[in-house]
Amino acid sequence: MTASLEVVTLEPAADQLRYTFGGGEPLLTVAPGTVVELTTEDCFGGAVRGVDDLPSRVCEFPYLNPVTGPIAVEGAEPGDTLAVHLVEMAPVRDWAVSTTFPHFGALTTTHSTAMLHEALEELVWVYEVDRERGTCLFRPRRGGPEVELPLDPMHGTIGVAPAGGEVFASITPGAHGGNMDTPEARAGTTLYFGVNVAGGQLSLGDGHCRQGEGEVCGTAVEAAMRTVVVVDLVKGGAPAWPRLESDEFLMSTGSVRPLEDAFRVSQHDLVTWAAQLTGWDPLDAYQLVSQAGLAPAGNVVDTNYTMVAKLPKRYLGGAVAVDGVHDRLRETAAAYLGSR
Amino acid sequence: MTASLEVVTLEPAADQLRYTFGGGEPLLTVAPGTVVELTTEDCFGGAVRGVDDLPSRVCEFPYLNPVTGPIAVEGAEPGDTLAVHLVEMAPVRDWAVSTTFPHFGALTTTHSTAMLHEALEELVWVYEVDRERGTCLFRPRRGGPEVELPLDPMHGTIGVAPAGGEVFASITPGAHGGNMDTPEARAGTTLYFGVNVAGGQLSLGDGHCRQGEGEVCGTAVEAAMRTVVVVDLVKGGAPAWPRLESDEFLMSTGSVRPLEDAFRVSQHDLVTWAAQLTGWDPLDAYQLVSQAGLAPAGNVVDTNYTMVAKLPKRYLGGAVAVDGVHDRLRETAAAYLGSR
Amino acid sequence: MTASLEVVTLEPAADQLRYTFGGGEPLLTVAPGTVVELTTEDCFGGAVRGVDDLPSRVCEFPYLNPVTGPIAVEGAEPGDTLAVHLVEMAPVRDWAVSTTFPHFGALTTTHSTAMLHEALEELVWVYEVDRERGTCLFRPRRGGPEVELPLDPMHGTIGVAPAGGEVFASITPGAHGGNMDTPEARAGTTLYFGVNVAGGQLSLGDGHCRQGEGEVCGTAVEAAMRTVVVVDLVKGGAPAWPRLESDEFLMSTGSVRPLEDAFRVSQHDLVTWAAQLTGWDPLDAYQLVSQAGLAPAGNVVDTNYTMVAKLPKRYLGGAVAVDGVHDRLRETAAAYLGSR
Amino acid sequence: MTASLEVVTLEPAADQLRYTFGGGEPLLTVAPGTVVELTTEDCFGGAVRGVDDLPSRVCEFPYLNPVTGPIAVEGAEPGDTLAVHLVEMAPVRDWAVSTTFPHFGALTTTHSTAMLHEALEELVWVYEVDRERGTCLFRPRRGGPEVELPLDPMHGTIGVAPAGGEVFASITPGAHGGNMDTPEARAGTTLYFGVNVAGGQLSLGDGHCRQGEGEVCGTAVEAAMRTVVVVDLVKGGAPAWPRLESDEFLMSTGSVRPLEDAFRVSQHDLVTWAAQLTGWDPLDAYQLVSQAGLAPAGNVVDTNYTMVAKLPKRYLGGAVAVDGVHDRLRETAAAYLGSR
Repeated sequence: MTASLEVVTLEPAADQLRYTFGGGEPLLTVAPGTVVELTTEDCFGGAVRGVDDLPSRVCEFPYLNPVTGPIAVEGAEPGDTLAVHLVEMAPVRDWAVSTTFPHFGALTTTHSTAMLHEALEELVWVYEVDRERGTCLFRPRRGGPEVELPLDPMHGTIGVAPAGGEVFASITPGAHGGNMDTPEARAGTTLYFGVNVAGGQLSLGDGHCRQGEGEVCGTAVEAAMRTVVVVDLVKGGAPAWPRLESDEFLMSTGSVRPLEDAFRVSQHDLVTWAAQLTGWDPLDAYQLVSQAGLAPAGNVVDTNYTMVAKLPKRYLGGAVAVDGVHDRLRETAAAYLGSR
Repeated sequence: MTASLEVVTLEPAADQLRYTFGGGEPLLTVAPGTVVELTTEDCFGGAVRGVDDLPSRVCEFPYLNPVTGPIAVEGAEPGDTLAVHLVEMAPVRDWAVSTTFPHFGALTTTHSTAMLHEALEELVWVYEVDRERGTCLFRPRRGGPEVELPLDPMHGTIGVAPAGGEVFASITPGAHGGNMDTPEARAGTTLYFGVNVAGGQLSLGDGHCRQGEGEVCGTAVEAAMRTVVVVDLVKGGAPAWPRLESDEFLMSTGSVRPLEDAFRVSQHDLVTWAAQLTGWDPLDAYQLVSQAGLAPAGNVVDTNYTMVAKLPKRYLGGAVAVDGVHDRLRETAAAYLGSR
Repeated sequence: MTASLEVVTLEPAADQLRYTFGGGEPLLTVAPGTVVELTTEDCFGGAVRGVDDLPSRVCEFPYLNPVTGPIAVEGAEPGDTLAVHLVEMAPVRDWAVSTTFPHFGALTTTHSTAMLHEALEELVWVYEVDRERGTCLFRPRRGGPEVELPLDPMHGTIGVAPAGGEVFASITPGAHGGNMDTPEARAGTTLYFGVNVAGGQLSLGDGHCRQGEGEVCGTAVEAAMRTVVVVDLVKGGAPAWPRLESDEFLMSTGSVRPLEDAFRVSQHDLVTWAAQLTGWDPLDAYQLVSQAGLAPAGNVVDTNYTMVAKLPKRYLGGAVAVDGVHDRLRETAAAYLGSR
Repeated sequence: MTASLEVVTLEPAADQLRYTFGGGEPLLTVAPGTVVELTTEDCFGGAVRGVDDLPSRVCEFPYLNPVTGPIAVEGAEPGDTLAVHLVEMAPVRDWAVSTTFPHFGALTTTHSTAMLHEALEELVWVYEVDRERGTCLFRPRRGGPEVELPLDPMHGTIGVAPAGGEVFASITPGAHGGNMDTPEARAGTTLYFGVNVAGGQLSLGDGHCRQGEGEVCGTAVEAAMRTVVVVDLVKGGAPAWPRLESDEFLMSTGSVRPLEDAFRVSQHDLVTWAAQLTGWDPLDAYQLVSQAGLAPAGNVVDTNYTMVAKLPKRYLGGAVAVDGVHDRLRETAAAYLGSR
């Protein structure tokens, strides 16, 4: 580790967890470039531990989907860009859970897609997590083959304080980030958020051992996480919607309804971003993204739906995004990991 | 080539091209298991050959998106499953085109998403196609880097005659297939269609040198194609919506609006299919798909939007879909390719 | 009746009923201005006659929602406007029916809004129709107050042959009209359709003793009807979407998904229409419609959803639509009614 | 006025206006049954006074759509029902304004329905308000007939503090009410809100001299208002979504996206409400509402869209809603008006 690497720890107690983006005092304040080792609780607050722990019984609204934070970043002002590099995340326990939550999910009546059906049956699945082998084990509740799935840890919920004094439940994704539930938020990725309030106020949680695209049933393989991030600041350049960068891809997100509008927002942002980076006319960028982009669903279950628009960086003629902060944070992460 | 391999050729003249699914006499009738070598014209009927050939001038409604077919399959009856294996497809010419078509695309006002804006500017992009190197070259119209993209040929439009005597324009995707515009329809993949009328009446066209997910601007790298398919028949088992199978994935599709309903249809079909193959309860299948599935956009521009739901076959406990026809067609394809 | 009033009768036998728009030979050809006395069967083909006649048992796909027609209009060519004035409609029988059809309706899982729920229970309601008193009687199946509702007869389905050789099931609404299911299609109203094929090919059916806006459960108070229309032709001026005119309102329709796009289409058409009639700039018409328009749902259950945009004619500065054909047809209707 | 009629006045200064629902201290606390005479500023904060006052120049985010309140109601606890009767509302000034706000409206690209178009031209319309004659005068900006429209004053924005500690911008409608923008919120109507926090915390604003259904261009005939309400409390019975009652109708609302989900929410609530009031089985209520209900759009422009579901009270077999509070508040209103 280089002498300059600042590492701090954030392990909130249960009563320090938050349930909103916006509105609270920061739990921690860090300088740009700081490595934060932190823990997050699962989306059920750890209350679902077995197949008999039905969420509708053991969880209490609005104490769902707790997040760790907010982390204020020194010097962050509205209009700046908060860069959050995900260094690593690992499930804390040797089990994880998923459920069908009544009136939640893509293939069920919900409070918004209101119908006269009774709720689907509420079931809990407990996954065995084997961190050594890097797997989690799916056990069907009613027979049929068990399936060993690879761990692919991610945070479903990560974002900053919204603009305009709004306070959103942590289950809501939007322009501030939040509960986007995209599997792209995995280790090795940098997320960019527009800063709306002083300090930016980063929070994250809702760790998933893995998640399919769309999060169809409404919950992933939910787990408390031990996570390391590097938090950095780029002055100005605030993106309108959260963006992500991996070694291979630039990614834009859109979190609204209906799903085609989430698609439009994410694609519009990616087109605009690519045009700005390369000097292409927007219509030229529109053309290139149309032929070379990917468009996976994030979630189609939350209060807003999330689509992700991805473009391989190799198709940008050598352009570098956000002043190259992703590469620098990769180096910081490597230095941190090498120093342990 | 084994003695039993039947190979026929279908190269329709311009006046033999069709513009609908349903309603016409078959252009060819084949026995199940037949290899068909065929050609398809591009979605502009070959009329857009340079940047000055604006589609709104050189194309005439409804003579858009021509398809080759219908190909009747002997013995196919309503309720059966038509299996179409894509053996190979290659662009016919050394160029391909894409355009912004007025009032068509995801980031523009359209006839359905009607707004008071003028149409976006109509532009044509001509790609150089290098079949040797397997690339197509994107040249921005207004400066900035050129980009060499890998060829990844596919058919945007493939399907059968609809049910109930309906006749749909070839630009419409739906339960009959049609203009799904998913990049998954590439060589090595088998598509399954429910048969609605005697013979099934397969048609295909709208070849793309490559296409991004969502086909954001409304057109891909459009090219006339030389394509080889194997057409086979499985009695009974008609899927409600087109399904695809590759060596790695089972895939379901949904083509409706809004996009979340296309997502729901595709995921519902995949969940139901996985449950049927494995013996899982539908809620168990719902759970597994939620954690292990992929959900890329097909198109978000056509008269219906298409979502694809994908599940790795290795998570199905060894279950085999559609009586193993995919593997058999892979063998047929190998035999055919080996015999040339 | 004036000497010039031509009156013809069209009472198709059961095997003459049609189930699509587009694709068949006309059942009748009339000169513009002809009064047509016709009968229509109910959407169940008359097969649901009591609470035990569940549609899923007594009806057979695709023999649903029969229409009377097509009626070809002499001289009608693509680009012309077919004007259909509804003179009167009366239920034929002294009963009418409604049902919850499995997987059909706004508050249930459907084939498009696909979910893992079982279908809602299939129930039939039989209404007593009292033509003298002008009422139909709602009898709840499971107790609670009976309700006498006023008759307000309308046709759920009315339209012309689609463009481009397409053939649509009669349950589908669209730019050709079809199953719009708006209560605005009542006596005293003139409907305008753009002609797509020679003769226009008008068909209608799906009579409702009355219907709420949105047709929430999927079926109205369904009845066979005895209906009188005047069919007229205006050369040119084909509207892109069906329009309606009553003594008080101009109305535009949009029939697509999602519902906001149906809203957009209908409002865009009304704004454009108002601008054309008055000489307002489109932005001025947008402003006026925003303050003075009405926007009821037609249906939110069919394969496309329908919204209606209404503007009081008195806010148009004296402008007259479609060359005043509505007023002329009102006179024709009065002459016809006076002559009986 | 009876001796017991309590009347208080609330005329907030500019710096006392609020821009959110939730999160602030009450500006006034009243006992149930109090008549409140209050003023509201227009949605532009009074800054748009002429055609050159473009909102994008004279307004500053997030200081848009100010509301008067919150008004805390003594004894209101979560789960209770806040009843707000609109006694009268009158525009304060002899002019009112409307605009096309860039990226806002139903027929334009917005931040959610993101497209590559430039924003529509930003225009301001100034209406002359004649309170004596009860009219407001539309003057087209670019020629064509002027139109005198009847005043039909309403509040676009009215609601309570949201649940779960959330704070929403006043431009957002939802389960808490807010910016529903339905013309049904006119004098003579009682609104019912579920109480989420102690006191309920009622706020209102966004007065409109009149508004078309859907508020297509995004703004109505916007005016500062002098308004009188009676605020009352019913213990328990909190509706999930705002409900309205007039002398003739029960009304449910839904404010989500897409628009069909807003329709579903409103219809589901109306069906459920009707079933509860009459003793009908939910499927019987579904049937009756399908035949007798109305379904106008509220707004199709805000961050959530609003649909209204209406049922004539005369079809409820004499059932009385919310313990008859509407009739009692009508009497209170009459007493108040008679006493002036």
